[in-house]
Amino acid sequence: MEIFKRRWTGSREKGMATAAKRADRAASNGMIELYSHGGGRVGVMVEINCETDFVARAEQFRTLAHEIALQIAAGSPKYITADEIPAAELEHEAEIARARAKEEGKPDNVLPKIVEGRVEKYKDEICLLRQPYIRDESITIEKLILQNVAAIGENVVVRRFQRWELGESAAQS
Amino acid sequence: MEIFKRRWTGSREKGMATAAKRADRAASNGMIELYSHGGGRVGVMVEINCETDFVARAEQFRTLAHEIALQIAAGSPKYITADEIPAAELEHEAEIARARAKEEGKPDNVLPKIVEGRVEKYKDEICLLRQPYIRDESITIEKLILQNVAAIGENVVVRRFQRWELGESAAQS
Repeated sequence: MEIFKRRWTGSREKGMATAAKRADRAASNGMIELYSHGGGRVGVMVEINCETDFVARAEQFRTLAHEIALQIAAGSPKYITADEIPAAELEHEAEIARARAKEEGKPDNVLPKIVEGRVEKYKDEICLLRQPYIRDESITIEKLILQNVAAIGENVVVRRFQRWELGESAAQS
Repeated sequence: MEIFKRRWTGSREKGMATAAKRADRAASNGMIELYSHGGGRVGVMVEINCETDFVARAEQFRTLAHEIALQIAAGSPKYITADEIPAAELEHEAEIARARAKEEGKPDNVLPKIVEGRVEKYKDEICLLRQPYIRDESITIEKLILQNVAAIGENVVVRRFQRWELGESAAQS
């Protein structure tokens, strides 16, 4: 068992502005949270990091980790942030959006705006941090995390996740 | 809920020879089993396939899936079978074994045999199916699965797994 020297010095009052600044601080503690759905038909594994072992064991952090795992199971994100989306995938989505807008008879001068809007919507759908939180669609997962960071007083980072469905790999192998 | 038309026609008596033949049959049911260790410091996700939903729900299959997840947590395999090991990795291991054997003053004529033996031992260590079962080191995981296949009467396949340790990705990102 690790011995624990650092005390929790965060403050709940400074709120979201401070929370956003914390994004620069190192986060290498935390936990690997698991979630299984439908008797093992869907499995989710997600690593959530925080700064200290103390917070990693705290109930609020563990609850947040569980909520994020649930979100991944329900929302099927492909990426954590929009930065991870390959350029080719975004270009492909833009092509589809452009073709659809033309089919709908939109005038050429508004096409770029429409395409941009649809690509942004696509990012909202496939990026975990941009998805609306399944229990409260008025906030994104990013906002949910920042709210918790404000209360926890430590930086919290979703490091990586995997979401598997039973049999989806059968075709590949 | 899926309705279940197929009956279990396997026989326990035919034993391991039949079990080995079953390896050809399709296995697309099953479950994704999860296992977490050390309060979330290690996480394992493994997909185990069988042929029918009936077996996927059976206690023996579920127990086997759990044992395999435990094995992955404890044994830290890198691959399922030796076929998956990249040639470069095996060559690298062979180089190390050759250099070590020379340092130990082994005569040149026995070097190939020694190198081969050490590479095989390496495969036993890093391949899940070749690892000795943590609860009974006299059998490998492959043997454990075949014993269960003989009793279950269906092909059972470890399709894929992931084993994560907390913080191991921090250096990469």
